[in-house]
Amino acid sequence: MNRGYNFGAGPAMLPEELLLEVQTELLNWQDSGMSVMEIGHRTKEFVHLMEQAEQQLRDLLTIPDNYHVLFLGGPARLQFSMIPMNFLAKEHAAGYLISGLWSSMALEEASRLKQAYCVASSEKTGFTSIPDIHDYQLKNETSYVYYTPNETVNGVRFSKPPTMGDTPLIADMTSCLLSEPVSIADYGLIFAGAQKNIANAGLTVVIVRDELIQTINNDSLPLLLDYRTHITHKSLYATPPTFNCYVALKMFEWVQRQGGVSSIYNENRAKAHKLYQVIDTSDFYHCKVAVADRSLMNVCFTLTRPEQEELFLSEAKDNGLLALRGHRTVGGLRASLYNSMPMEGVDRLIEFMIGFAKRGVTH
Amino acid sequence: MNRGYNFGAGPAMLPEELLLEVQTELLNWQDSGMSVMEIGHRTKEFVHLMEQAEQQLRDLLTIPDNYHVLFLGGPARLQFSMIPMNFLAKEHAAGYLISGLWSSMALEEASRLKQAYCVASSEKTGFTSIPDIHDYQLKNETSYVYYTPNETVNGVRFSKPPTMGDTPLIADMTSCLLSEPVSIADYGLIFAGAQKNIANAGLTVVIVRDELIQTINNDSLPLLLDYRTHITHKSLYATPPTFNCYVALKMFEWVQRQGGVSSIYNENRAKAHKLYQVIDTSDFYHCKVAVADRSLMNVCFTLTRPEQEELFLSEAKDNGLLALRGHRTVGGLRASLYNSMPMEGVDRLIEFMIGFAKRGVTH
Repeated sequence: MNRGYNFGAGPAMLPEELLLEVQTELLNWQDSGMSVMEIGHRTKEFVHLMEQAEQQLRDLLTIPDNYHVLFLGGPARLQFSMIPMNFLAKEHAAGYLISGLWSSMALEEASRLKQAYCVASSEKTGFTSIPDIHDYQLKNETSYVYYTPNETVNGVRFSKPPTMGDTPLIADMTSCLLSEPVSIADYGLIFAGAQKNIANAGLTVVIVRDELIQTINNDSLPLLLDYRTHITHKSLYATPPTFNCYVALKMFEWVQRQGGVSSIYNENRAKAHKLYQVIDTSDFYHCKVAVADRSLMNVCFTLTRPEQEELFLSEAKDNGLLALRGHRTVGGLRASLYNSMPMEGVDRLIEFMIGFAKRGVTH
Repeated sequence: MNRGYNFGAGPAMLPEELLLEVQTELLNWQDSGMSVMEIGHRTKEFVHLMEQAEQQLRDLLTIPDNYHVLFLGGPARLQFSMIPMNFLAKEHAAGYLISGLWSSMALEEASRLKQAYCVASSEKTGFTSIPDIHDYQLKNETSYVYYTPNETVNGVRFSKPPTMGDTPLIADMTSCLLSEPVSIADYGLIFAGAQKNIANAGLTVVIVRDELIQTINNDSLPLLLDYRTHITHKSLYATPPTFNCYVALKMFEWVQRQGGVSSIYNENRAKAHKLYQVIDTSDFYHCKVAVADRSLMNVCFTLTRPEQEELFLSEAKDNGLLALRGHRTVGGLRASLYNSMPMEGVDRLIEFMIGFAKRGVTH
């Protein structure tokens, strides 16, 4: 079959056993006589699938009953607009913690549409750490504080949620949801694009506290950008991305089979620590990110001899180690280690890196 | 394999040969070592796929160079909001032709957000015809006229575009794009959700004239709701629904192999006419739609003995004739005959209907 290990930051690798299941049942799903790609979203079979997906996610993350779970079509980036549009009244503002490209773009969009400001930023470290918030101050009338627990571009992670008093916390967990335990009750809203740890691209999962929904006070929102529309219609107001929802359910079941989120988290820590150790103990590789703030999902590193990057990428590819190029805005190398990346993939990468360094040093 | 014929109105049937191709290459796409569900949207392989999809669609529909082609993530219903938000300045209004549920909902959403009005409606016929527009009048400062060439709920179709002078025409072709030839130059904007004739659900195709884009005069649109964002970034501003785009390309190639849109149209006419003929020549089945306005895609009919509907549906299902229930707002029966429904499916349905009528009459 000749499949490689895909270290891309997303769309990302999916478990091979999941892909094999999808493949097997692609033309006739559950003896329905049709593909899951063809079945109507209002059939009882599909409605049941959506209910199962929600229940599985609730179980995996222990989501309290006062939280709604939504499966929305379209990119997670739409949340950058929806969040301020829904939760910011005219006289209010939102605070943003800036730890990289994604939180910066979220603030930029919120500022275009409403009032938003930076609470703290790690820009001065080149986003190689999370922002220092020990003396943070929120403006009066701050409706929420937004942050990005894991930033994929520089590989930076909040190892615990920032404490922001009673102000609702909103988190873009696109690149970390399901990769580690999360205390849902700490958040007003969590969202995640599917293409890292949930499903293929085209689906966004939203988990939102009902009390936050009750604060929405804007009746001229575009209908599909109003969270209440999706809550009322249980994510079926418009046609949902049916196939992605199906893949998500399979992924939730797969995570369950791995022992749930805690087991996955242990495995993720082991994978990342192993790789960081190789980088830190080598003169050939370098990781700029502060040790305490290093991402478990996206290990970003550079070569001491950056002129060998292309050679590294091309030899890695020949070894089935794919998509290791860093984000276009920062360059360098990046190994994304989402849930679906098996330990063997990390071991193969490490073996290759050690060999390349030996050869590289003598070039 | 035991696949049935899926007469659902959408998500709809896909060609079996397309599904088989998808199935075969699902774990390793084009020898990339990964599934097309896993590949990054900024890789040269995927960017090439997007370019091919656009070119194939341009070829199939002879899209002029001054039109942009967009592949957007999320439901087509979002266009109900985007169109007025982009194209209606404060002092302007939009005219809507109302021929059924979908155009009614589009007008409702436009009226919530901006100024919009009904130019003509066929509500008085119970939407069993298209609106009479022979003495239509547009208000001053009408920025566009919107209509739905094919309404799926009652099965009503405009057999040619309404003539609206120089006012740009905007059409929701969700249920008919690629099913018949269309003169793109007659339109300011055409959009279509993928789940009928293009791909699986989760993708919306937009074809828009550049001159209409130039009229956008609103710099506080949510970024993903601004057509200019997607034009500038060639549909890759945010992560697109990659798998749907891949299925769309396969579908465009399939349409090409059928001889293109003209050949498909001939086949679609033959399929629909055959079925309407059975209905019209039987005392057992009835179609309320005016003959000239009958949909080629959604053949809606009722039984003279409506109490036999459930029996009809259940026996049909036993015969592999699936999803024939009418839309929940109107009841009755509906056979959707999108491009992927083969003539054999229609023949099987007709054979069943004739048999059922014989048995039904004697019950």
